[in-house]
Amino acid sequence: MAQGYFLTGKAASPATFDYFFRENPFGGGYVIFAGLEDLLSLLESLEFRPDDIDYLRSLKFHKDFLSYLQRFRFRGTIHSVSEGEPVFPLEPLVRVDGTLLETQLVETVLLNLLNFESLIATKASRIRLAAGDKRLVDFGLRRAQGLGGIHASKAAIIGGVDATSNVYSAFTYGLQTSGTLAHSWVQSFDDELSAFRTFAELFPDGCVLLVDTYNTLTSGIPNAIAVARELEKKGKRLLGIRLDSGDLAYLSKKARSMLDDAGLSGVKIVVSNQLDEYLIRSLLQQGAPVDTFGVGTRLVTAEGSPSLDGVYKMSMCDDKPRIKFSDNISKTTLPGSKKLVRYSMDGDEFRADGVLLDAERSVDEIHHPYLAGQSTRVSGLREEPLFEKRMEDGKRVSAERRAETSALYARDRLRHLSPEHRRFENPHTYKVGVSQKLLNLREDLSRHHGADGRSRRARSAG
Amino acid sequence: MAQGYFLTGKAASPATFDYFFRENPFGGGYVIFAGLEDLLSLLESLEFRPDDIDYLRSLKFHKDFLSYLQRFRFRGTIHSVSEGEPVFPLEPLVRVDGTLLETQLVETVLLNLLNFESLIATKASRIRLAAGDKRLVDFGLRRAQGLGGIHASKAAIIGGVDATSNVYSAFTYGLQTSGTLAHSWVQSFDDELSAFRTFAELFPDGCVLLVDTYNTLTSGIPNAIAVARELEKKGKRLLGIRLDSGDLAYLSKKARSMLDDAGLSGVKIVVSNQLDEYLIRSLLQQGAPVDTFGVGTRLVTAEGSPSLDGVYKMSMCDDKPRIKFSDNISKTTLPGSKKLVRYSMDGDEFRADGVLLDAERSVDEIHHPYLAGQSTRVSGLREEPLFEKRMEDGKRVSAERRAETSALYARDRLRHLSPEHRRFENPHTYKVGVSQKLLNLREDLSRHHGADGRSRRARSAG
Repeated sequence: MAQGYFLTGKAASPATFDYFFRENPFGGGYVIFAGLEDLLSLLESLEFRPDDIDYLRSLKFHKDFLSYLQRFRFRGTIHSVSEGEPVFPLEPLVRVDGTLLETQLVETVLLNLLNFESLIATKASRIRLAAGDKRLVDFGLRRAQGLGGIHASKAAIIGGVDATSNVYSAFTYGLQTSGTLAHSWVQSFDDELSAFRTFAELFPDGCVLLVDTYNTLTSGIPNAIAVARELEKKGKRLLGIRLDSGDLAYLSKKARSMLDDAGLSGVKIVVSNQLDEYLIRSLLQQGAPVDTFGVGTRLVTAEGSPSLDGVYKMSMCDDKPRIKFSDNISKTTLPGSKKLVRYSMDGDEFRADGVLLDAERSVDEIHHPYLAGQSTRVSGLREEPLFEKRMEDGKRVSAERRAETSALYARDRLRHLSPEHRRFENPHTYKVGVSQKLLNLREDLSRHHGADGRSRRARSAG
Repeated sequence: MAQGYFLTGKAASPATFDYFFRENPFGGGYVIFAGLEDLLSLLESLEFRPDDIDYLRSLKFHKDFLSYLQRFRFRGTIHSVSEGEPVFPLEPLVRVDGTLLETQLVETVLLNLLNFESLIATKASRIRLAAGDKRLVDFGLRRAQGLGGIHASKAAIIGGVDATSNVYSAFTYGLQTSGTLAHSWVQSFDDELSAFRTFAELFPDGCVLLVDTYNTLTSGIPNAIAVARELEKKGKRLLGIRLDSGDLAYLSKKARSMLDDAGLSGVKIVVSNQLDEYLIRSLLQQGAPVDTFGVGTRLVTAEGSPSLDGVYKMSMCDDKPRIKFSDNISKTTLPGSKKLVRYSMDGDEFRADGVLLDAERSVDEIHHPYLAGQSTRVSGLREEPLFEKRMEDGKRVSAERRAETSALYARDRLRHLSPEHRRFENPHTYKVGVSQKLLNLREDLSRHHGADGRSRRARSAG
């Protein structure tokens, strides 16, 4: 397609694309937007290297187009919501303005990064809601979807996880690391006690012992208690024990009472093994005395909804608004250059979001995007613009934002979203409306392309 | 842990780890093993660069350990089954022999690559079974789990997909590419017919037109027919049309009859939109005249089972067999250095696989790995060793195998697996047994570590 635009002289036509999704994942009520920082970094450095060009030449791309690609740099402008923002279906979240060729060329990588990081940040946010103020650590890399694990660990931090065992991601993104020992450490010694003792001698600070290699209650915990006492004689404390199998509610209670009986009430209990927001909620409801949850596979693969259905659709080309029409009105896109605003009660609870044409100032009322006759008055509510310019002419206009900063932002913003929108079961739908002018524009273009299609075709083909 | 092994002088102890999984994904009856080639390439080039070392130094790793890592190269030996092999739960698929430190250090990356590529190759294989000899193209990158899409596209080819729209993977792995146009191409023109006509002029060979941007039946297909006729006047043929929304069974039938009525029976029909093995089977059962299926999200994210539960467990250390014990016998690992053999009827249908100690020659009977009293006679059956040496002292011992070669191998091998094991609903469990000697060894070690745990602890701690 890029070559097609190039060869027909359309490459430099001005174009606008919107990124949005249609359905909240996990049956939930919101998405935490993420992936923006990785996208901006990638767009700043995007280029075609000589071996890329050689490969494309072998696929028979046109030589003039290949010369163009050799010099290609992304020079577009990007407006978007902030990383960490709670966002909702059908809202434009990112607007890309630039030439037709460059805005088209970045589609796949933009969708890949935003869809995946937003998905994982959302899953992490749900797990954080279930876990309250307990510590959460990402253990997922070994079962992540390939190199997707690199972005998953970062997105998990944005959504509310505290630390990761993924050292590469920690290195790349400046995340907090958290390690642990595996069964193989214990297996590599002739007995469990020697394995624990050696580990505690090497790492007397922050030592967490994995107690289920052989038998948790008759061997693992008693051996951990023995080592904790040895550490105390040296003026050190065992940080914790980890349970990685069996009935975690039962075992954590037994472990807690065995540790307490041994005078080790300061030793923490870490649990892991196929955890997600539902299991964590269930464990806490059963009164499991857990201090830290290690969350792996189900976090980094977004078990339950392994993809976010985000799309990237053209809304303007050659300075004219464009739509993708569908007989299903909910799938007809919103045309024109748009912005997103949030309405709230004096900066407190979020009440609704509005999608307006970029040129509009304020509106008194927003309308359901496709159900006729449903509208919401927004006059009198505080209005907050959610779009900020992030990139202009291919260059960032503000400094990179760290995952930790986005995590704090997400935590703060979620507080303004009512519990009805945050709950896991049948959450209340957050209101997203569009302005009357935008509705009118979509209606005009739908008439033009929809019902009218056949006659127009006949005319054109005639 | 690696630093722990290093500081306690255990780094160079000989150790053996096995890779295996416990449950077939998707409720299916088999897994297609993949990821080996990427793993071997990575292990050959694995090293710690100066900035990696600097980062680890900032995490307070010991300076002697960091000096060791600066010189680290993987020097282990790897035996495994072939990429593309149909394999089954509890079988050792890869055996890694080396020093304790190096075998431990590669755990996460090994699990990540083998789990993910095997998962996607398996999903692709199921989609191939549903699609019969129809053409299958991977369209998944935009909703893949981040950079996981790179490996997903390769694994999809191993499992039976014909081509990918992921040009980067195609470049990296020498895969067949297949492109298409998007709605935005059509939107960028003032009318659909001009968009189609221009695309066909630019790419008269292999042109597939997307017909659902506005209205499939009243605009898209009639316009495609008009362009097909224009191409015919130039001695060219329209390759196909693509349907990406709506009722694909209904629309593909309507499209076929409209094309046939226009004398265009050679124009192919491509369909896409949230396809998987079940939808493809349903479309074909309804007689949908589809020539090519574009399969995206549900393939590359392994919708239904987004992770394979593969693990990497120590089976030997310091020349002694080791187990991870569990009260649940099915979760107690198989100790010792092992190999995998396949029994079949004269090289025809696969009947059972046997896990034997490496030193064993042949056995007459194999036993269920954890259900007492269930055994299968294998004497008289053809016995085929499934393990081959792939790497010795950190170097490949055979040439890299292309994805296409593994795909042909997988296709051929699946023919020997009976339909009862391949079916989607309640597949018959393929027999995997272990030798009597291996059972005895596990039993000995279980007694040592299991029931006996408390008394041994008391003695050791005494």
